[in-house]
Amino acid sequence: MDTCETDFVEALSAAVRKTEQALEACLPPERGQPGEANLAAAMRYAVLGGGKRLRGFLVLEVAAMFGAGGSGAERAAAAVECLHAYSLVHDDMPCMDDDDLRRGKPTVHKVWDEATAVLAGDALQALAFEILADPATHPNGNVRAQLVLRLAQASGHAGMVGGQAIDLAAETAETPLTAMQVKRLQAMKTGALIEFAAEAGAILAQASARDIGRVRAYAQALGEAFQIADDLLDVTGTEAEVGKRVGKDAGAGKATFVDILGHNGAHARAADLVAEAAAQLAPYGARAARLVGAARFVVERRS
Amino acid sequence: MDTCETDFVEALSAAVRKTEQALEACLPPERGQPGEANLAAAMRYAVLGGGKRLRGFLVLEVAAMFGAGGSGAERAAAAVECLHAYSLVHDDMPCMDDDDLRRGKPTVHKVWDEATAVLAGDALQALAFEILADPATHPNGNVRAQLVLRLAQASGHAGMVGGQAIDLAAETAETPLTAMQVKRLQAMKTGALIEFAAEAGAILAQASARDIGRVRAYAQALGEAFQIADDLLDVTGTEAEVGKRVGKDAGAGKATFVDILGHNGAHARAADLVAEAAAQLAPYGARAARLVGAARFVVERRS
Repeated sequence: MDTCETDFVEALSAAVRKTEQALEACLPPERGQPGEANLAAAMRYAVLGGGKRLRGFLVLEVAAMFGAGGSGAERAAAAVECLHAYSLVHDDMPCMDDDDLRRGKPTVHKVWDEATAVLAGDALQALAFEILADPATHPNGNVRAQLVLRLAQASGHAGMVGGQAIDLAAETAETPLTAMQVKRLQAMKTGALIEFAAEAGAILAQASARDIGRVRAYAQALGEAFQIADDLLDVTGTEAEVGKRVGKDAGAGKATFVDILGHNGAHARAADLVAEAAAQLAPYGARAARLVGAARFVVERRS
Repeated sequence: MDTCETDFVEALSAAVRKTEQALEACLPPERGQPGEANLAAAMRYAVLGGGKRLRGFLVLEVAAMFGAGGSGAERAAAAVECLHAYSLVHDDMPCMDDDDLRRGKPTVHKVWDEATAVLAGDALQALAFEILADPATHPNGNVRAQLVLRLAQASGHAGMVGGQAIDLAAETAETPLTAMQVKRLQAMKTGALIEFAAEAGAILAQASARDIGRVRAYAQALGEAFQIADDLLDVTGTEAEVGKRVGKDAGAGKATFVDILGHNGAHARAADLVAEAAAQLAPYGARAARLVGAARFVVERRS
């Protein structure tokens, strides 16, 4: 690992700690009438104590690059992680991807039941927006509303949920998706939320439109690189390393970058994307070092 | 019907029309890659062309009472109806209340499948927040963020979703809920969103805290009256009248106001609540006539 990457690994550990603390402060306690305590327990289980927190890191790191760290950025990081966790809980359900294992632990519908999985996911989505809209996240109402608007767009029908719908339809389709369609699907399903995470840091700092554009372009390249790495891990990783079932995408006839580009082609494309991500942040010099390290890390990770 | 109620019925028709138009403008078109068009179709099916639009009416009517009608209020009405529709789609799923019929039509998971029901609900929730956070709803960012914050609180773990979790747990509990517990559960499950709808109209008009308090108290009484009427309809209504399966609550061991208060007691309590709702709005005189009519209507309705 070079300096960028060492710095990144340290910054990621710090981001994990800060995001967990902010989540603890925002999540409901496990108490109340029967049903209520269960719901809180499932929400906490889904979002606490696991995950790489790449999205939380992006919020914090971009905010810091533009001089806006602090509790507001930590709350926004927690919001993005709540949104991400809700999508995992719903995607793991039997009627969707039907996964029993997530982050090395049984999935929510296995620990509780499907109804609890639906409700915990629904409540985590609402909590994400609640956190962003709260004055504790930013004193300026326009900033809060902008964060909400962009997260809703990134996670809704034109973003994450739409991408998942296309992905499910592709499993049973007679003809495989084209390269362009796979790229669009992944940009919606995974890329949009990663892009939002980086953008949120810039919005919190009230950065210029030009800066927001650069950060989004960086995150777009990062997101695609991340997904290619995920597809490669699904082919080459072991379940113990990855913490979830592997080899399932090929089995389910899912459209992946490895299918389209081949193993070597996928590696080459990932390297190009890392270079592209770094180039977008070149104007910020050393302040962007850890974000550049993040782009390298996502394609070299083993889980 | 007296004048209040006649006026109310006309205002409700107008609210239905305006809310449908705003929804049409906000919902995604049925196009795109396979999966995407389906998702949009399921979202549209769930929220368009049905329902009493009581929540949309409350937004529009309270906003108008404080002098803030127009397209902003219509968009907020559409947002509340998207949120309400998402909750119905998820609640109807086999793992939850397992209903085949809603508003006289097959439920989303019967027309499509369970995965589409999960995703259409998820996307409708995101759309509700997207609509509220958009500058087209109100030029003031603080107002938009306040709308988002209050909707998230009303619909999340401490509101609607929490209430549904308590309700599901009560079905399999060994001891029935107490009267206080049923009241709290209903206030969370149904009341919170009805309260938000009325409050949203006042927030849009930038009404005083005192006015917002009055409107909330009105809506709280209205919401409880609405739920009592629902419980009475579940006992006395026919499926053709009500547009969904009836008699199911007693069969499922669900806690209802009729169980706790008895048939006559429930009717008497509903009448008290209507009087309470009217009293809260007395300071606004004739401007509140249609909202008072709404309170009477919800307890006298046949579906």
